Amino acid sequence: MSTSERFCVSDLKEERAKCDFDLEELTNLMDGGKEMTELRRQCAQKFLNDPAFTDEIPQDYLSHEDRYGNELRKACHTVRKMHKEGITIRQMASHGPRGLTLDGNPLMLHLGMFYDAIGGHGNKEQREKWLPLAENADIIGTYAQTEMGHGTFLRGLETTATYDKSTQEFIIHSPTLTATKWWPGGLGKTANFTVLMAQLYIDGKCLGPHPFLVQIRDLETHQSLPGIIVGEIGPRAGLNGNDNGFLRFEHHRIPRTNMLMKHSQVLEDGTYVKPPHAKLSYGTMVITRVSLVYHAAFQLRQAVTIATRYSAVRRQSELVPGEPEPQILDYQTQQHKIIPQIASVFALLLAAQNCGKTYVSAMSNIQEGDMELLPELHALSSGLKAIGGKDASEGVEICRLACGGHGYIASSNLPRIYGNTTCIITYEGENTVLLLQVARYLIKSFRAGRTGTPLQKSVAYLSPKSTAGEVNLKNAGLVEAFKRSVSAMVAETEGRLRRLCDSGLNYHHAWNRCSVSLVKCAEAHNRYYICDQFVKNVESLKTSLGVRNILKDLCRLYLIYHITLEEGMFLKAGVLSPGDIKVLEEEMTELLGRLRHQAVNIVDSFDIDDKLLHSTIGAWDGNVYQRLYDEAMKSPLNKTDVPKAYHKYLKPLINAKL
Amino acid sequence: MSTSERFCVSDLKEERAKCDFDLEELTNLMDGGKEMTELRRQCAQKFLNDPAFTDEIPQDYLSHEDRYGNELRKACHTVRKMHKEGITIRQMASHGPRGLTLDGNPLMLHLGMFYDAIGGHGNKEQREKWLPLAENADIIGTYAQTEMGHGTFLRGLETTATYDKSTQEFIIHSPTLTATKWWPGGLGKTANFTVLMAQLYIDGKCLGPHPFLVQIRDLETHQSLPGIIVGEIGPRAGLNGNDNGFLRFEHHRIPRTNMLMKHSQVLEDGTYVKPPHAKLSYGTMVITRVSLVYHAAFQLRQAVTIATRYSAVRRQSELVPGEPEPQILDYQTQQHKIIPQIASVFALLLAAQNCGKTYVSAMSNIQEGDMELLPELHALSSGLKAIGGKDASEGVEICRLACGGHGYIASSNLPRIYGNTTCIITYEGENTVLLLQVARYLIKSFRAGRTGTPLQKSVAYLSPKSTAGEVNLKNAGLVEAFKRSVSAMVAETEGRLRRLCDSGLNYHHAWNRCSVSLVKCAEAHNRYYICDQFVKNVESLKTSLGVRNILKDLCRLYLIYHITLEEGMFLKAGVLSPGDIKVLEEEMTELLGRLRHQAVNIVDSFDIDDKLLHSTIGAWDGNVYQRLYDEAMKSPLNKTDVPKAYHKYLKPLINAKL
Repeated sequence: MSTSERFCVSDLKEERAKCDFDLEELTNLMDGGKEMTELRRQCAQKFLNDPAFTDEIPQDYLSHEDRYGNELRKACHTVRKMHKEGITIRQMASHGPRGLTLDGNPLMLHLGMFYDAIGGHGNKEQREKWLPLAENADIIGTYAQTEMGHGTFLRGLETTATYDKSTQEFIIHSPTLTATKWWPGGLGKTANFTVLMAQLYIDGKCLGPHPFLVQIRDLETHQSLPGIIVGEIGPRAGLNGNDNGFLRFEHHRIPRTNMLMKHSQVLEDGTYVKPPHAKLSYGTMVITRVSLVYHAAFQLRQAVTIATRYSAVRRQSELVPGEPEPQILDYQTQQHKIIPQIASVFALLLAAQNCGKTYVSAMSNIQEGDMELLPELHALSSGLKAIGGKDASEGVEICRLACGGHGYIASSNLPRIYGNTTCIITYEGENTVLLLQVARYLIKSFRAGRTGTPLQKSVAYLSPKSTAGEVNLKNAGLVEAFKRSVSAMVAETEGRLRRLCDSGLNYHHAWNRCSVSLVKCAEAHNRYYICDQFVKNVESLKTSLGVRNILKDLCRLYLIYHITLEEGMFLKAGVLSPGDIKVLEEEMTELLGRLRHQAVNIVDSFDIDDKLLHSTIGAWDGNVYQRLYDEAMKSPLNKTDVPKAYHKYLKPLINAKL
Repeated sequence: MSTSERFCVSDLKEERAKCDFDLEELTNLMDGGKEMTELRRQCAQKFLNDPAFTDEIPQDYLSHEDRYGNELRKACHTVRKMHKEGITIRQMASHGPRGLTLDGNPLMLHLGMFYDAIGGHGNKEQREKWLPLAENADIIGTYAQTEMGHGTFLRGLETTATYDKSTQEFIIHSPTLTATKWWPGGLGKTANFTVLMAQLYIDGKCLGPHPFLVQIRDLETHQSLPGIIVGEIGPRAGLNGNDNGFLRFEHHRIPRTNMLMKHSQVLEDGTYVKPPHAKLSYGTMVITRVSLVYHAAFQLRQAVTIATRYSAVRRQSELVPGEPEPQILDYQTQQHKIIPQIASVFALLLAAQNCGKTYVSAMSNIQEGDMELLPELHALSSGLKAIGGKDASEGVEICRLACGGHGYIASSNLPRIYGNTTCIITYEGENTVLLLQVARYLIKSFRAGRTGTPLQKSVAYLSPKSTAGEVNLKNAGLVEAFKRSVSAMVAETEGRLRRLCDSGLNYHHAWNRCSVSLVKCAEAHNRYYICDQFVKNVESLKTSLGVRNILKDLCRLYLIYHITLEEGMFLKAGVLSPGDIKVLEEEMTELLGRLRHQAVNIVDSFDIDDKLLHSTIGAWDGNVYQRLYDEAMKSPLNKTDVPKAYHKYLKPLINAKL
């Protein structure tokens, strides 16, 4: 059915009639090409019309146990369908519809990290043995690294894998309560295998964390194996269908050959063979973090689609006394909440695409042992993960709050989207920890620059030799303003750090004393990088004029929005004046006013199927109130006029003579 | 049992041993006096040890319907116990333990707004008739104002109450879908009465929204009455035990005497009698908004108690390589997340106390029809509600994220506290709408000041005649810096507004075009007011030296923290220099380092019982990991090794030849 024939409320019809760019072209751009859009849609077609993914009783009404059951049902159905349709795990990861399950998929880690860990850490023999078993769901796996007492700091892990030469086995053990593996998705009740990170001990010597493949449940009965205690960790702020689990070992033995030996090896006699390049496994971390930026952008895309459509349908208060209630999207305050989030989606996607390209082009060198680019890639991907997770979470919440009361209701899907986004801040490297690693790279680069060492691309501006462009209010001038301001901030922080050390403080304590500033440096550097990429992309992308104008406005808005948010940094560096900021603020007003008229069309170009968006107030047709009402009528409590609890508790109270 | 005899983990024991102030004195200060602490504890004692308030299966595992049943059980038990103990609704509201129910109390609006609305809008006869019925739970009420399509903008309400002279009845009707009452707590399944806001129509003329008392369910059978459609609106981001409901009328008739007639009246013959003072009912709004600031501060108090204790117990990474993992509270970045939230609790409480006092002292004038102070009170309370809701929500979320993964787990109670706090931003006047009302007051006052009119206290600094103090880095000097910067911002925005009007733009459109700046002005003004009150209170409060030092440090931290967050405002106004900011940042480092050592003791002084805090990671004993584990073991999914869903979905998948 063509768009023009589909029903939508008149307010949205009018917004859509105003479209002045090629919607499909923008969709292709975000998917990474026309072919990718096609692949995505083909894959989605196969799944989205399948009634198995529709819940008769919406997920939110179910008990914790039933939620898990329902999501497991859908997850298993997905895997069967994939096989029927000839779609592999890899293809599903790149083109499959995200969000077939709402609250996390109990098989998500099986299809992702478990599969990737065997692929990335297993040697040829191991990959040939285990990957087909995983692909065919003969074994169901997860990835167990985090422990109750240990997260981002990998070296702190307590679980041990002690090699027993006499039997050629590893003895896996959880020596303390805090050593309990805690958090892995699908671990609680679903997985019968796990890739396990444990401290390798040979002859009493600790060799650091290594990956092992461990069976945890019987493949016939699904009962946990002797010496293994496994269960789920209880409800969370989101992803409650995911059966995040805990796992403890009591001197549990596994064969030597279950250590994943692509990098390090333990020979039969207990000889430990080190990997040729200690940092070789860092590559997967880079890719994981970049993929999280895509994931974050996707979440934000959903939230801003909902908020934009709702704001075009919702009418409230008076702009001019006596006139009819306007669409709330007409209020500047509402535009200022929502439209920068639209810009943010593009900014994050383009930065992630660019970081991905840098990775691919560096990959061959890295495989050959040339590690020069690794620190740059590590800093880039860590920084992008941190800023992407934070921007998306905050953006989703701004969108949710911009929908007023209806944004608080579960059927808007905004509370769930927030729950599924905010966790990005914490997992795969906690944000503050990552930002401090970025800061370490900045300080190191800054110091190297002072000694004349040439710097990597993303930090070249920190060198005293960097050829300064002109600061003005054009895009390139504003990027230059970013460079100089961040540079000044890094210089000041580095100076403070140095002075503290000179005054006799231990370097690490001095570092800690500067860490709030260091985090700020890292955040500002990331913002600079994203702005720079956005500007470069908009300049270089080959598009039609209509799409070009949209992208130019969004890029310009993104730059100005973030400069006004962090105006202090530019003023302190003396790079922009209060007058400059005033001019930029005025321009932002113009941009918001202009983009407001294409906002609905831009979010339409995100091309998110109603079944994935899953929102009463954000659906394509804008039939907000009817959908809210109909969804409420699905409540089991609304199936009877008088609830059971009335007879049990309320009636006796009302009848009592108090 | 005295504190010293209670078990706690050694890290907390050491923190507590460092206490250098009188904990009980600080508790009294926050409660509003020694007697208030006693009353609160006595009241709490009566409830908290009652096993009826302990859930065998934690609330988070239940279905939506069972959650409601469980919370209704506790709510009814609470009312019975109140009567048994001779505690009235009023006493419970002021001294009762908050949080006996976790997810909203289906009787909350009965005990609050329903009771207050009859008290505030009913005439003597009506109060005498209905209040005892409410007090004795013979009728169960709620307050229905918000509609599906209409929130903060009261005049937009669509529900009609048309007077029928012939029968002396009002005909209550919902003319559209968007007229459906939507959101009132307890409305869905619990209440049999409601105070209803509806547009009063007499002889075809609309006289605006008025309050009516409407029975909605049969008092014997609890069935909804003919002509009334009522139900619950479905799950939400929080407060899911609250059965928020919807309500529609089909020409439903109620007696004339059910209009609440303290202010306006409708006589038998249809004569409409206007209230003597149109704004008389604004007083309750002031009190409601101030009470929300207390509520917000209480939520933040819980979150920061949890985060502080957890940060003293959690050990992670390395501060100095090779040394043991430090308490995460030792990291400056962690201190910078958590300790300003502690300061925020005090700042919000002191500002709310002061606003309450202003209200009480103005009350007698207002009762006598002197409305001069009303705009000041309205602006103050609206601004405090907005900033309190926002600061508390963001603060809770900062605390939650500061607890890493464990802050994402439901048993930390942090996700729930966030859900119960973020709604403050939206209800009782949406924040952006309120801030624009504050801005209107600021612009009006600024202009009045220019014509020589004397200004009210909170905005006196906007007058050109205001005697300027000296700006320096002492507390008073920083408050002066606030005054001048906000003043400059208001002046600039007023100028822009004026120029837009001069250029021919309609005032209302010009207002909208400036509204992002206007909101900023309002926020900055609120921040100034809170800072000013904090400084004045710390100077005037009579305390021991130990408590005084804590308060001084917290106040100083609050000032500097917010100046560094909004540094651009001070720099643009030329009131503080980049050098000043640098000096303040250095001082903040000192303050964080010093307050870190009392942080656990300060949150201990918040005196929140473990049963109310309800957190595995924030309990007084700090036994974080054992509590996390024990709580997980309560999961119904953990009652069996192999879950039911395995046999249904997973086993067939594993056994299938894919």
